Amino acid sequence: MSNQKEYNVAIVGATGAVGQKMLEMLDLVGFPIKELTPLASKRSAGQTIDFRGEKVVIKEAKPEAFEGIEIALFSAGGSISKELAHEAVKRGAVVIDNTSAFRMDPDVPLVVPEVNKEDIQKHKGIIANPNCSTIQMVAALEPIRGKFGLNRVIVSTYQSVSGSGNAAVEELKDQSRAMLDGKEAEANILPVKSEEKHFPIAFNALPQIDVFEENGYTFEEMKMINETKKIMHTPELQVAATCVRLPFFYSHAESVYVEVNEGNVSVEDLQNVLREAPGIVLEDDIENQVYPTPLSAENKTDVFVGRIRKDLDVPNGFHLWIVSDNLLKGASYNSVQIAQAIAENNK
Amino acid sequence: MSNQKEYNVAIVGATGAVGQKMLEMLDLVGFPIKELTPLASKRSAGQTIDFRGEKVVIKEAKPEAFEGIEIALFSAGGSISKELAHEAVKRGAVVIDNTSAFRMDPDVPLVVPEVNKEDIQKHKGIIANPNCSTIQMVAALEPIRGKFGLNRVIVSTYQSVSGSGNAAVEELKDQSRAMLDGKEAEANILPVKSEEKHFPIAFNALPQIDVFEENGYTFEEMKMINETKKIMHTPELQVAATCVRLPFFYSHAESVYVEVNEGNVSVEDLQNVLREAPGIVLEDDIENQVYPTPLSAENKTDVFVGRIRKDLDVPNGFHLWIVSDNLLKGASYNSVQIAQAIAENNK
Repeated sequence: MSNQKEYNVAIVGATGAVGQKMLEMLDLVGFPIKELTPLASKRSAGQTIDFRGEKVVIKEAKPEAFEGIEIALFSAGGSISKELAHEAVKRGAVVIDNTSAFRMDPDVPLVVPEVNKEDIQKHKGIIANPNCSTIQMVAALEPIRGKFGLNRVIVSTYQSVSGSGNAAVEELKDQSRAMLDGKEAEANILPVKSEEKHFPIAFNALPQIDVFEENGYTFEEMKMINETKKIMHTPELQVAATCVRLPFFYSHAESVYVEVNEGNVSVEDLQNVLREAPGIVLEDDIENQVYPTPLSAENKTDVFVGRIRKDLDVPNGFHLWIVSDNLLKGASYNSVQIAQAIAENNK
Repeated sequence: MSNQKEYNVAIVGATGAVGQKMLEMLDLVGFPIKELTPLASKRSAGQTIDFRGEKVVIKEAKPEAFEGIEIALFSAGGSISKELAHEAVKRGAVVIDNTSAFRMDPDVPLVVPEVNKEDIQKHKGIIANPNCSTIQMVAALEPIRGKFGLNRVIVSTYQSVSGSGNAAVEELKDQSRAMLDGKEAEANILPVKSEEKHFPIAFNALPQIDVFEENGYTFEEMKMINETKKIMHTPELQVAATCVRLPFFYSHAESVYVEVNEGNVSVEDLQNVLREAPGIVLEDDIENQVYPTPLSAENKTDVFVGRIRKDLDVPNGFHLWIVSDNLLKGASYNSVQIAQAIAENNK
């Protein structure tokens, strides 16, 4: 370790739900850091965060803050990334961006290391971290695609409120308390802060994540559809998504239907492939009621898969239940894995 | 109304979540009742319930209790129905059974009045009320099938705890309070009371409703698959289901993918059919964030449909979001509609 190169790392959005987890994950994997620079809005500048037992002062996220930075992890919203990512690149940083700002840009690799680590090499300064619900799905589907081929995916999601940030976590808590006390629940954030109408998420389900597109799909649904094809390099893959926000704090779950290309594939075949797959934990033993849930996946960096079963009508059709912590593998941990891959490439 | 025949009606399971709603629904529709006989376990016998402004004493559910009963609404669990339904029929009652005891019996009509009211005529004493998650789905899909044909259904459900009874409702409340206070959540009922393991439902999602079958599907999933085909008289229809229990109190929601037989069907075509369909309310105006949710459907007898959109790859594929109160249209209201149809046939 002593000869290993150490990096000047910036975290943009260090006070946010994902930013906080990025600090944890950098520490967890023992990422070689020379100096850490937490960046946030002017409002948070001057406050401190704890990192590896030391207090580090938060600076304002502005172009000059990237002088000397080698790796910049962005997670402060798309508009901040659009404003500052190129400024960071201009100053010599490699940007790992966790917003949707550059994901579909043909010049920007969109990377889940277990799936397409090699795409990192093609970067021109920016590497995009995919959408949380996309990451866990492609991590579980790529091993299946690699072995048996894949021609169709239909997913319905069960997504936690932390995907909308810390304020949404607080909103769920406040609304839950109010409703349990028989009071009216106040809704100001979900389903989408910028939208006109807000609905309670406590003891409810909202079939809207992000704004609606012209085609009737939400932006979240289109992210899952388009990003999946880009990451797996399968433009012809049929992908459909319905995204639903639910009253739990962490982890997203997904009910996924897939059709593989090969015939004569069994549930055991899929289980065997997933058992060996990197970053995947098979939790599929119905006789003992073993299957993943949002609570059981919380605070873990893996993607958990269970309830694998054959479609009763379509011979090459299968159903799966995929769960992962949306702030870890779905965001911060995947970003840190990309940083690790960059460090490895530099060795 | 004065010349209308009035009925001696028994409610078996009068103290349960569905039984209580059956009383409400009988009153709501103004069902012609000569005498109401609430039946329950020995433990509840002697207590009273309120009906149409009067206190009515609960009697013990046993064979002799059905003497003189003309219509018996059962909702006290499958074993009680198996024990007592034939006893009620023997004594001259028509049984409307809300358990899974007889649903797949070829001699027992399985009825959603908007879909297959005519099947009621074939009864031999027992008419079965379908599973809650099945009812709302077939109510919304039958108008589509009738107009455009239907060859495939893939559904992922979002089901409330009241489907597991009043004790599950209390469990969700208790667990929610405990977890908000940073305490451990005690789990004794969900996912399935009789199973060995129980998991918290508060701030979680459980991909198990009812016990597992040999084929890897849960009994709830097989109910949706088999009952849908029976009610719609479409044994060849391809149906797949994944059923998930979620932390809300009332209403089930469903993300449903369908393939219709006809080509050139548009979203507007589906909307127009559903707008005119009995028992269906179209809530589908994404520009104004109009779509149904479990909370918005609560305490309403209709089935609400929104988020209708075309699959982006399969020309005859569509996605829908279907929500209804599981204790009303999903159980008590549908049973009372069957009773109304019987009364109509007797006119």
